[in-house]
Amino acid sequence: MRILISNDDGVFAPGLGVLARQLAQEKHEVYVVAPDRQRSATGHSVTLHKPLRVERVDLEAGIKAAWSTTGTPSDCIKLAVNQLLPDKPDVIISGVNSGPNLGSDVLYSGTVAAAMEGAFSGFPAIAVSAAKNDRATFALAAEFVVDFLRVMPKAPMPSRGLFNINVPEPANLKGVRVTELGKRQYQDIFELRHDPNGRDYYWLSGRAIEEGESELSDVYALIHGYITVTPVSFNMTDKNTLAKLHEMMTVNEFSHHVRSK
Amino acid sequence: MRILISNDDGVFAPGLGVLARQLAQEKHEVYVVAPDRQRSATGHSVTLHKPLRVERVDLEAGIKAAWSTTGTPSDCIKLAVNQLLPDKPDVIISGVNSGPNLGSDVLYSGTVAAAMEGAFSGFPAIAVSAAKNDRATFALAAEFVVDFLRVMPKAPMPSRGLFNINVPEPANLKGVRVTELGKRQYQDIFELRHDPNGRDYYWLSGRAIEEGESELSDVYALIHGYITVTPVSFNMTDKNTLAKLHEMMTVNEFSHHVRSK
Repeated sequence: MRILISNDDGVFAPGLGVLARQLAQEKHEVYVVAPDRQRSATGHSVTLHKPLRVERVDLEAGIKAAWSTTGTPSDCIKLAVNQLLPDKPDVIISGVNSGPNLGSDVLYSGTVAAAMEGAFSGFPAIAVSAAKNDRATFALAAEFVVDFLRVMPKAPMPSRGLFNINVPEPANLKGVRVTELGKRQYQDIFELRHDPNGRDYYWLSGRAIEEGESELSDVYALIHGYITVTPVSFNMTDKNTLAKLHEMMTVNEFSHHVRSK
Repeated sequence: MRILISNDDGVFAPGLGVLARQLAQEKHEVYVVAPDRQRSATGHSVTLHKPLRVERVDLEAGIKAAWSTTGTPSDCIKLAVNQLLPDKPDVIISGVNSGPNLGSDVLYSGTVAAAMEGAFSGFPAIAVSAAKNDRATFALAAEFVVDFLRVMPKAPMPSRGLFNINVPEPANLKGVRVTELGKRQYQDIFELRHDPNGRDYYWLSGRAIEEGESELSDVYALIHGYITVTPVSFNMTDKNTLAKLHEMMTVNEFSHHVRSK
């Protein structure tokens, strides 16, 4: 397969390197387009107000070509499929991220944003994240992706979506689970500090709240030692509410906004 | 009602001012916490690696209190509900944004991100955007929000979600529609340019593709002169794919990842 790899930890992040090397060894045609630096928690941002620089990068023997860009993960995918790659990829993989992306993390994660950008452009897409920032966990993640790519052509693709994969550290591994996105709420903690000139500033830290998650959730499964595969769709219309709202809003509450033309 | 207003265009953006003033005139208790500058297309980013500054801002007579922050729209909501507001708000409103937020825009939009941050913290939330960057359109949007707030307590809230409202310019207004999120695809156009030192750079521009949208979509309705109200949920698990994947992945393709403990 022709595979485009990106991430949000930067083009030289070890998680990306381990994945790219493994896929190249399996005789896949691997291209890398990734940010030139750490771009975590950039969410789904795109760069419209600034120029983007692109540079060829020498990554590893076996990788067809690699580029770093000054853009966000979403920018990287747009540049890759529109400008840089000689042909369209068969699949876009973002990762291996250092740290998990579970539940509502998918909305904030640059790793997921890159895969989502691919999905919106019509490509099969995978986001893959490691619970622990070490080579053994990245290696397990890469190994699992190799296996998953064999199954994926037979699997139904999520509607306008992607497969979100999280991998526990190998020492805890119990198996693989197909999961739902958990809630993954954070308790936001702001520390009020004072700078050397006496001015106030806040620093945000957050603690993930692990209680109250369903046993079917990715959060629960990962904690309990399972590789999680969650099909994520970005069709976000709430159909239930839609139906009820339709009834309510036809009863003329807003008739003064209706002007005959 | 106690209302928290934010946006992604900055605390002094005219759309926010028009909305805050109108809600204050209607005897709502209005607080504003918004970025100190333009923060469009920042997506759902949060600031973890940098300190956040907060400053009191003098906005308008009638507004209880206003602050600007150096953070993103999501940061503003976190700061507001955890640190700045004397009491929890009854509703969080983000806008009025300059420019529409339709279909998949909701994933990139800082306006929607602020409202979503509120929704995730358990508050009723609205994102409101104006198709045109002028006072008449902002005024129509503010007027509609006032009406919608009367109905909202009776309306079902989207599950872990928000109401996404878009408002056409008054000259085109035909009425109000409850809509689905459209596709809202963009044709990405990269211009390759050369800087004064002869180095290449790319500049991204995008053209929204309006063809192929359903008549039920927000994209279609707004173009045709309707105020759109779309219930958006951030429960993004693809349940269809989930079921099929469950069947597939129990058939032992991944049995070598299962290690007995």
